[in-house]
Amino acid sequence: MISPNTLKPDVPAVILLSGGLDSATTAAIARHDGFALYALSVDYGQRHHFELEAARRVAQAVDAVRHVILDVDLAQLGGSALTDAIEVPKDRPAAAMSDGIPVTYVPARNTVLLSLVLAYAETVGAGDIFVGVNAIDYSGYPDCRPEYIEAFQRLANLATKAGVEGQLKFVIHTPLICLTKAQIIRRGIELGVDYSLTHSCYDPDEDGLSCGHCDACQLRRKGFAEAGMQDPLKYQA
Amino acid sequence: MISPNTLKPDVPAVILLSGGLDSATTAAIARHDGFALYALSVDYGQRHHFELEAARRVAQAVDAVRHVILDVDLAQLGGSALTDAIEVPKDRPAAAMSDGIPVTYVPARNTVLLSLVLAYAETVGAGDIFVGVNAIDYSGYPDCRPEYIEAFQRLANLATKAGVEGQLKFVIHTPLICLTKAQIIRRGIELGVDYSLTHSCYDPDEDGLSCGHCDACQLRRKGFAEAGMQDPLKYQA
Repeated sequence: MISPNTLKPDVPAVILLSGGLDSATTAAIARHDGFALYALSVDYGQRHHFELEAARRVAQAVDAVRHVILDVDLAQLGGSALTDAIEVPKDRPAAAMSDGIPVTYVPARNTVLLSLVLAYAETVGAGDIFVGVNAIDYSGYPDCRPEYIEAFQRLANLATKAGVEGQLKFVIHTPLICLTKAQIIRRGIELGVDYSLTHSCYDPDEDGLSCGHCDACQLRRKGFAEAGMQDPLKYQA
Repeated sequence: MISPNTLKPDVPAVILLSGGLDSATTAAIARHDGFALYALSVDYGQRHHFELEAARRVAQAVDAVRHVILDVDLAQLGGSALTDAIEVPKDRPAAAMSDGIPVTYVPARNTVLLSLVLAYAETVGAGDIFVGVNAIDYSGYPDCRPEYIEAFQRLANLATKAGVEGQLKFVIHTPLICLTKAQIIRRGIELGVDYSLTHSCYDPDEDGLSCGHCDACQLRRKGFAEAGMQDPLKYQA
């Protein structure tokens, strides 16, 4: 489906794979750029495992060299709708979604995820790290902003043996950071991403069917509508 | 044993507790400063669990409000003598120890540990984070240097809801960073730290008895000798 170019045929890169639309598109971009992908998914105590199943499908679709799924039970620390039994908000108007930091915020989540990706990258000898963070739609998360990513990149090169000794220069690639959801979807479809493999919903039913009404579902549906594309996912009635 | 002053009787602080001499001393300093301690230990796939048992004893000795032990199996990512079956170096001269980054280096370890501590701190509402890193003895680790700690502190305040919204200002306290091992031990003994509770050895026998010859044991013994104090730990014959 995806035809990688041959610019970087043997360069390893690490990608953080959630199983969502953004990380699937980021993976396709990295693969298209010719990187050999080492995927990392983190099970941080999400309330459902459909995300991780989606991550497995996406890793396979981009021919990942290796896909590690690491358990880190952040629920032991407490906080957030994604790990606790807090009600996931439904059918919020767009204005409410972009107003402040959502209750689905997980304390320091991206810092935890990026630190694990950095450990993986140094271990496999990859300086290139891809993450599908996005600061446009869903800008409420502080750890999705460009200035945060820059600070992490700086830290990565101070923190590591490979960075300090100069074997690797860590670069955090965030190809989606300034794209709208519609632009992300259009780019993904150009690259042949099969979005039926992905999962976005915060509150699926027991069969994994998306609710269609949580913030993640609403942003996804709006993105497909604005891109003029059909979302291949089925939603609950 | 430790008599906390009453300057900050109700201010929560988070401390990263390994069970070693440095983190035990740091905990005693934080407690002496009057903080209510939330301790975090991370089981990142160490080869033995004596460290975590020591962490439990130390948490109890400093009246920790809570002590969370989190599993993060870094061995899944590969690399390092502390998680793999690489030979731990023994009886290395001091010059060799301070020459370059040791094989016991775990990729991005302190970044992973600090990110988890940050998640814990934001969850319990603590802006103060204590870590027992030290840049003098054992300066080989890049993620123990002051410039690294400063970069992480900057990141912490960009990364988090509490930091961005101003409810908390994250400060990474590193009271040992410029002390020699002997100075650390003297300070700890002043504060009543019982070093028989701690564990330093990278390669203990099955009963948890320290080898006396790995880098960690050598630095510890040298520290006690230079401080003119008796190390209460028993070593293998």
